[in-house]
Amino acid sequence: MPFTAVPLTLYPDMFPGPLGHSMAGRALESGTWNCAPVQIRDFATDRHRTVDDTPAGGGAGMVLRADVLAAAIDHASAAHLGLPLLAMTPRGAPITQARVRALAAGPGAIILCGRFEGFDERIFEARAIEEVSMGDIILSGGEMGALMLLDACIRLLPGVMGAASSGDDESFEDGLLEYPHYTRPATWEGRTIPEVLRSGDHAKIAAWRKQKAEEDTRLRRPDLWERHEGARDRPASGARQKKKD
Amino acid sequence: MPFTAVPLTLYPDMFPGPLGHSMAGRALESGTWNCAPVQIRDFATDRHRTVDDTPAGGGAGMVLRADVLAAAIDHASAAHLGLPLLAMTPRGAPITQARVRALAAGPGAIILCGRFEGFDERIFEARAIEEVSMGDIILSGGEMGALMLLDACIRLLPGVMGAASSGDDESFEDGLLEYPHYTRPATWEGRTIPEVLRSGDHAKIAAWRKQKAEEDTRLRRPDLWERHEGARDRPASGARQKKKD
Repeated sequence: MPFTAVPLTLYPDMFPGPLGHSMAGRALESGTWNCAPVQIRDFATDRHRTVDDTPAGGGAGMVLRADVLAAAIDHASAAHLGLPLLAMTPRGAPITQARVRALAAGPGAIILCGRFEGFDERIFEARAIEEVSMGDIILSGGEMGALMLLDACIRLLPGVMGAASSGDDESFEDGLLEYPHYTRPATWEGRTIPEVLRSGDHAKIAAWRKQKAEEDTRLRRPDLWERHEGARDRPASGARQKKKD
Repeated sequence: MPFTAVPLTLYPDMFPGPLGHSMAGRALESGTWNCAPVQIRDFATDRHRTVDDTPAGGGAGMVLRADVLAAAIDHASAAHLGLPLLAMTPRGAPITQARVRALAAGPGAIILCGRFEGFDERIFEARAIEEVSMGDIILSGGEMGALMLLDACIRLLPGVMGAASSGDDESFEDGLLEYPHYTRPATWEGRTIPEVLRSGDHAKIAAWRKQKAEEDTRLRRPDLWERHEGARDRPASGARQKKKD
């Protein structure tokens, strides 16, 4: 069975969009994954196909109606049994590479994409929805986040990256940033490739790369480094354990 | 002058892509922003238009050549004077809403999008490039991150969201998650809208929303909450100051 992506959106034409190009595009053509967007508006019940209304209690913007969302979700869940249901929202849990790996190992995902001010909160009480955040910035809608999440999943599907690259040796896979890369020309604008990388000594190269990965993580991402060191040195406490999940 | 987006990419056809729809699409049509992708491959110097080579020191994947990247960057910088230069890379600083606001207030951005294993590191020593990460996950390339970053910027451009919504009252703008939203119907699947939101008492509604925003941030994002409380209660130390930037 191919990996099935089911974005629930007011803009189904945004999909597959950029995922129709390059590696993801070839995988789409070869049937490694498929894309079945659902138009939320099709589940509106009035003549004007209304999907949103003004926020209770006042304020700017519009809120997506729980009844319309539920109808779209229930339709998609019935049409694609067993797919996990996610919603793109800045109120969600920050996405992790571990979660991406788990999703890529599964049958696909139904991804609810908001617009306007967001979703009527009752939808999250009434349906089992994993609220996911794609970063601490505000988008015009969930579609861009869904595209990014799907891109991260699709590259991990069997055969997509090719046998040469498993994706294991990359940033975040071991809780560290990846080491820096170099390639030809050996000298460029007076700058040379670090000597060790041209030594042919594989043990020394591996040691240098590990050291650089640790050094760069410590300098650039003290938050990641702290978690990495915590996971290594300390017996896991409840709170810390949760952070790593 | 419109906001100018200049993605440097091997897949210029991915742009504007999803940004050609909805709010960003209308803003593109009306000339609020424009999109001028640059094909990195046009700056290759050999007959085969090679842009990448194997990593020095061995390993899977391919690395984008510094000389080709520099030629593309120098061309774009000369064609679009004064635009900040960013690169999408998991080794970069995590994007923040504050940085998005600053970019949206400026003339645009040149955004270098990687593919394969990444960039020859020397490009970052030789050119002034802001390395930005769009989240702790690995994408097939920088394009999806660039689309997301541009979406976040474009919605903040004058006139794009309309006068009613300034975007101030949202997640992360004050260091907190946004409060939950509700809209009609008043009762749905037996679930009602919180009483206070139907009270018409604006002071009570504002107090309830503030309390929910704080409560949800504390429960869902202890990392944000800690930073928020730190910023409020403690005199800023060097390290903490850096974290907030």
